[in-house]
Amino acid sequence: MSAAQETVVLQGHIIDSLILAKVLDTILMMGGTFDLKDMRIGATRDELSRARILVRAPSIPILAEIVQAIQPHGASVEREADCEYQPAPSDGVLPDGFYSTTHLATQVRVEAEWIDVAGIEMDVAIVLDPIRNSARTVPMGEVRKGELIVTGREGIRVIPLERPRERDVFGFMESLVSAERPHHPVIADVARRMLAMREAGRHNPSRSKVLLAGGPAIIHAGGRDALTWLIDSGFIQVLFCGNALAAHDLEAAFYGTSLGYGLTAGRTVPHGHEHHLRTINRIRAIGGIRQAVETGMIKSGVMTACVERGVHVVMAGTIRDDGPLPGVITDSVAAQRAMRAAIPGVGLALLVASTLHAVATGNLLPATVPTVCVDVNPAVPTKLADRGTFQAVGLVMDAASFLKELARELGWSR
Amino acid sequence: MSAAQETVVLQGHIIDSLILAKVLDTILMMGGTFDLKDMRIGATRDELSRARILVRAPSIPILAEIVQAIQPHGASVEREADCEYQPAPSDGVLPDGFYSTTHLATQVRVEAEWIDVAGIEMDVAIVLDPIRNSARTVPMGEVRKGELIVTGREGIRVIPLERPRERDVFGFMESLVSAERPHHPVIADVARRMLAMREAGRHNPSRSKVLLAGGPAIIHAGGRDALTWLIDSGFIQVLFCGNALAAHDLEAAFYGTSLGYGLTAGRTVPHGHEHHLRTINRIRAIGGIRQAVETGMIKSGVMTACVERGVHVVMAGTIRDDGPLPGVITDSVAAQRAMRAAIPGVGLALLVASTLHAVATGNLLPATVPTVCVDVNPAVPTKLADRGTFQAVGLVMDAASFLKELARELGWSR
Amino acid sequence: MSAAQETVVLQGHIIDSLILAKVLDTILMMGGTFDLKDMRIGATRDELSRARILVRAPSIPILAEIVQAIQPHGASVEREADCEYQPAPSDGVLPDGFYSTTHLATQVRVEAEWIDVAGIEMDVAIVLDPIRNSARTVPMGEVRKGELIVTGREGIRVIPLERPRERDVFGFMESLVSAERPHHPVIADVARRMLAMREAGRHNPSRSKVLLAGGPAIIHAGGRDALTWLIDSGFIQVLFCGNALAAHDLEAAFYGTSLGYGLTAGRTVPHGHEHHLRTINRIRAIGGIRQAVETGMIKSGVMTACVERGVHVVMAGTIRDDGPLPGVITDSVAAQRAMRAAIPGVGLALLVASTLHAVATGNLLPATVPTVCVDVNPAVPTKLADRGTFQAVGLVMDAASFLKELARELGWSR
Amino acid sequence: MSAAQETVVLQGHIIDSLILAKVLDTILMMGGTFDLKDMRIGATRDELSRARILVRAPSIPILAEIVQAIQPHGASVEREADCEYQPAPSDGVLPDGFYSTTHLATQVRVEAEWIDVAGIEMDVAIVLDPIRNSARTVPMGEVRKGELIVTGREGIRVIPLERPRERDVFGFMESLVSAERPHHPVIADVARRMLAMREAGRHNPSRSKVLLAGGPAIIHAGGRDALTWLIDSGFIQVLFCGNALAAHDLEAAFYGTSLGYGLTAGRTVPHGHEHHLRTINRIRAIGGIRQAVETGMIKSGVMTACVERGVHVVMAGTIRDDGPLPGVITDSVAAQRAMRAAIPGVGLALLVASTLHAVATGNLLPATVPTVCVDVNPAVPTKLADRGTFQAVGLVMDAASFLKELARELGWSR
Repeated sequence: MSAAQETVVLQGHIIDSLILAKVLDTILMMGGTFDLKDMRIGATRDELSRARILVRAPSIPILAEIVQAIQPHGASVEREADCEYQPAPSDGVLPDGFYSTTHLATQVRVEAEWIDVAGIEMDVAIVLDPIRNSARTVPMGEVRKGELIVTGREGIRVIPLERPRERDVFGFMESLVSAERPHHPVIADVARRMLAMREAGRHNPSRSKVLLAGGPAIIHAGGRDALTWLIDSGFIQVLFCGNALAAHDLEAAFYGTSLGYGLTAGRTVPHGHEHHLRTINRIRAIGGIRQAVETGMIKSGVMTACVERGVHVVMAGTIRDDGPLPGVITDSVAAQRAMRAAIPGVGLALLVASTLHAVATGNLLPATVPTVCVDVNPAVPTKLADRGTFQAVGLVMDAASFLKELARELGWSR
Repeated sequence: MSAAQETVVLQGHIIDSLILAKVLDTILMMGGTFDLKDMRIGATRDELSRARILVRAPSIPILAEIVQAIQPHGASVEREADCEYQPAPSDGVLPDGFYSTTHLATQVRVEAEWIDVAGIEMDVAIVLDPIRNSARTVPMGEVRKGELIVTGREGIRVIPLERPRERDVFGFMESLVSAERPHHPVIADVARRMLAMREAGRHNPSRSKVLLAGGPAIIHAGGRDALTWLIDSGFIQVLFCGNALAAHDLEAAFYGTSLGYGLTAGRTVPHGHEHHLRTINRIRAIGGIRQAVETGMIKSGVMTACVERGVHVVMAGTIRDDGPLPGVITDSVAAQRAMRAAIPGVGLALLVASTLHAVATGNLLPATVPTVCVDVNPAVPTKLADRGTFQAVGLVMDAASFLKELARELGWSR
Repeated sequence: MSAAQETVVLQGHIIDSLILAKVLDTILMMGGTFDLKDMRIGATRDELSRARILVRAPSIPILAEIVQAIQPHGASVEREADCEYQPAPSDGVLPDGFYSTTHLATQVRVEAEWIDVAGIEMDVAIVLDPIRNSARTVPMGEVRKGELIVTGREGIRVIPLERPRERDVFGFMESLVSAERPHHPVIADVARRMLAMREAGRHNPSRSKVLLAGGPAIIHAGGRDALTWLIDSGFIQVLFCGNALAAHDLEAAFYGTSLGYGLTAGRTVPHGHEHHLRTINRIRAIGGIRQAVETGMIKSGVMTACVERGVHVVMAGTIRDDGPLPGVITDSVAAQRAMRAAIPGVGLALLVASTLHAVATGNLLPATVPTVCVDVNPAVPTKLADRGTFQAVGLVMDAASFLKELARELGWSR
Repeated sequence: MSAAQETVVLQGHIIDSLILAKVLDTILMMGGTFDLKDMRIGATRDELSRARILVRAPSIPILAEIVQAIQPHGASVEREADCEYQPAPSDGVLPDGFYSTTHLATQVRVEAEWIDVAGIEMDVAIVLDPIRNSARTVPMGEVRKGELIVTGREGIRVIPLERPRERDVFGFMESLVSAERPHHPVIADVARRMLAMREAGRHNPSRSKVLLAGGPAIIHAGGRDALTWLIDSGFIQVLFCGNALAAHDLEAAFYGTSLGYGLTAGRTVPHGHEHHLRTINRIRAIGGIRQAVETGMIKSGVMTACVERGVHVVMAGTIRDDGPLPGVITDSVAAQRAMRAAIPGVGLALLVASTLHAVATGNLLPATVPTVCVDVNPAVPTKLADRGTFQAVGLVMDAASFLKELARELGWSR
């Protein structure tokens, strides 16, 4: 009956990551059958498991579809061949059959050798350098005519994610997006990691960076002091934000308000909505945030701490911005590029109260970076998971409460 | 042109409470016209304003409709007459034209004298005791055949809400339901009131009670220790909850879990979902929560603190309950009656993480009780306002973060 | 090293339902190891798979914990023994070690024979009738002193859920709670089932019932006409609701408003908030909804359709009710009992716009009943899944849009 | 006692728009007192009201603050003076005391004459052309060195919004953000306007434009056919969207999926997540959307309808974009400028399922443009109101249900 068959190999933590189950399920659902051959299951949590699976399908096209469908789970065709590639037809355009990456570590086979793909992130292509025998990812918009782009599915292998060694919150597969779970254990785990990373960063500052990508609600809701303390204390190395977070933070420094809302008064200040514009105008007049800090025009807050602690800040513009502040990268492609350049070395990502920054950052992060997504709206962490950032742990709480509790866990005494 | 006219009187803080504007607007919208006569506007925030308004309408029925529509704002027909009344036709049934209350203070005119209606709450009727010359509210289900029920609109006067003297968060008319406002000033104001009330309660314990109506997410999300501390410290005198909050609190005492989720482990404990049922069964076996505390079977947590501090607890049943625990009032009418009985003396209401309890409690509270509604879902405080509890200030945050921040503000050192 | 071992058997659709993976994962996570023996994997989607798993643990208590943890996934200890039982110590109290059910089909072993447990639902106990050799579930509150209650874990076997034969929306394991998925395919699948069930119900009316459990937002948001049509057309046999849905529906019949909001005018009607109370009072005066329909006092809407089509209605009271209407079961335990009695024969459950009714109904439904949970708030279907009703498909949309689209799919021409 | 006083004049629909109440309230709250002089109240809904208010304050600075605070409500200082202005100190920087606009119609007094400010929108500055005796708005980023910018508060007058003549949903002041209101009356009113505008647009196409600003959930959730029909039928003239909406629409044309989710199958298609990238790549290869339509590469959907019907499309880029598609304006300042250029002539704005586009578009719209904000998350319309777009009516429902119901109301027969 089966007109076509192929043996694929699957290895890694395929049992406890549910990968084997998903692969077998996919085969059956798409109309195939299988034999499990040479299944070896790691008897401890550290041993790898390995399965050879003979996939049968009623026709060659269906077989090809099945193999295509299970490959992102790490199944590689046993009959190993080199990966195929084609030159890009023009600047910014990929060859038709280009291979589109996941955010899992990936290897391509070039001249019978498996080489690592550098700079892995989601939904980009792979460009080969056959001279240096190397491979790296390239976003569609940045490909140049003639570059050699990996196509098809053969000779490509995806490494399934290992469960973290440490027994912390990132190690569990349960759905973790829920308003009904206690937040404290998650925050305590995050704090433990941040302490360890700060320690590790003393010896190797280029690894062990903590990234915070955040929205203006951090300031509105009252999280400014806690975030400032976290930066001042050396817990955060990279900040992704927009014009609004920075402007609200500076407005708080100038006027004590955020969009005209008195942060300590707890109410709208007369004519306060103008503070936002006046703040941006003053910073434009002096030339930039750094200048405002260095001249002493502003003396406190998130942006001041970033300047003083040398935090790598990427501010990306959007169509809802006023001004914008000097330093905001208004071109979204350039901003993406700047964010991408800041990712290497990031070992923990905190995505706080910004759907846009959470999804954009999630797209750029390898699956190996532990990620926490905090939003008062449960739809945000769900959306992140839908977009593929499955490693993210969701916390349904407001930004200020999260930052305060995290800072207190790390020693803040307010 | 105007076939009908009537003079109404409006007095109180009718300017700054926007009442005058709403009344005039309603008249115009319903097809009437008006003359403002003898308008006196209080020149300070404490002076009352007063306006006489001559309302004209094209017909008598339209005039009646207009007068009916503006009366809940406090407009009383000047040509004063005694209120009308009719006997209830049978137990649990009101006469057809019964007057339905707001939750604002109300007076009825009996034999040319204005008397206060006792026990004001929303959406109930007024029963007269012509012998004692008194009036009180009665819920529909509790009226008895023959009781004299106020009908129509004449001889009834509603007292518009005064703006609170204290300059705190409850004194502003802005929409206060927003995830984007800083929570801290609201929580600080609440804490100030609670301190003052605890102090006042030492001299007059029957006034100055703080009511907390809460849902089980308080325990799930990690707010148990903070709430326990608040009760132990004498800040809460009345607790409205359901079977679930109590059972989760007791489960935490027995097993350290909430619905099987380890509160400190931060993950699901194997077979932990059974803890919920086993907890309830153990309390049923020993006879009740008080017995469990007194025998030392449970030693910590919210319910223990309530027993030890003599907090007035009303537990109301719902169809999603397991068990339920002894002490849960399974009949909703009886539970409502028990809640109503606990309201007198309440001077501050905290409605935390329970739509059901928030709306049910909101229905029973006079408009004069400052109220805070806390929920991670912004629809809950909005719903409360839609149902008429306009005095409630909304905080969009999770229950645990709210209770922790409130407790810290009051001196908790965790 | 392993001081203890036990062989368990797992069979069913253990691969495509991810059960094997979860069981192995649980063993490893709890500190055990395993050997997979005699693993047979069904080669097609209809064939059952079967695995014998030798579980090893460092101690007997840990082994017992592991076995306890994997049993709800269907793993039964091979060394088969009869189930154990003890008499209930008093009315409403279970013996300490009582077995707490899941909502999966369950068998107990009595005198070497496996017998089915009747009336399976979540979180109840199993009572044996040793004379008739039968077993049935019993809620904690309804157990009587001396009844024989199953205890421990041995001799109990849970049947994993099969994937439905039909290739519809209920057959997939993907997380289905998302605002970002197209609703139409889900609604079309539901409509297909409802058509088939209506047809089947002609031959066997006691099976094939459709249950709708709904909240008052159905009426507020404008879904009244669509729901009325669905009932009139014979698509719904059981309705679970509260006082509010019924009262709003009747208010619409009397006044054209819902909580005073004009359903067609699209705005608040002056003094409309009284309509709610007046409606309830009129129904109380005439004696009930049936009487109001039969005397022609009300002629249209959801409740009228229910009376005319003989729909089995259970109205459960809550503490936020006004009135309530005659027919509302105010005691929550009695209401639960009435809901439970209406479940047999239900083959599809629609839980619409009511957290309370969704969770309460979910608790009573066996896992084999396809279930759709519709709410504009994504937290509601998530909560349902957290509570164990994993078979529910979530739709994030408003009640009115859902009911209209469903009715149109079934032939409604509005 | 009062060391300072000033007479201000307020006129317009100051009663029914609650403006008088707010102004008096603000005066009292800020520590002032007032006398109401020459109050004339329009006796019908069309007559303007007018009040002269003598404001007294304890000091001149407080008086200045009060006058500043009440001016956005339309209160102008009676002692009329010309507006003040200063040259911009450099490109992109405003003089310190610049006047920041509201989105209400505004006039400035130049040489004793009141002239209209052209192109009013929120949070921009006013630039004078003293030669032509004209004034127009200018965003901060576009001001050029030396341009004359209005400063201070004198000689500026804001025209309070009139209540619309038509008795439709836009004419009411009630909070209109609620999941609990019937959607149909709002949608019916919108449809009526759209019909009238299409008719009017036949005679004067440059006025009477309908703007839709939408997010990708329109496609995900199944609203593509309805939106295509609305465009094809001439109901929409301007479309603001991002890369995602366009890419998902084109993906649906190519593959029948949206982010790999089968729109009709109702489930994830294997490897479907690549469709998104492949779609963008194909459009980049052919040069753009217009080329894809004109060559027949795509034949259906939203973008095709836009090309065929000459809809003015502005696609703005964000940092979460893949690709992006040719035609996406990646620079946020340039995109804002393109959106601004498309606003004149817009007479109705529909903001659907995109927080970013809703807020960005809201910022650009004059208060006179009736606006509907549709989102399944109630926080979005609330945020819009918080940002100042108070004229927006909020509908809490999913995008697809909204577009389908709107299209059906306008004659769509699906």
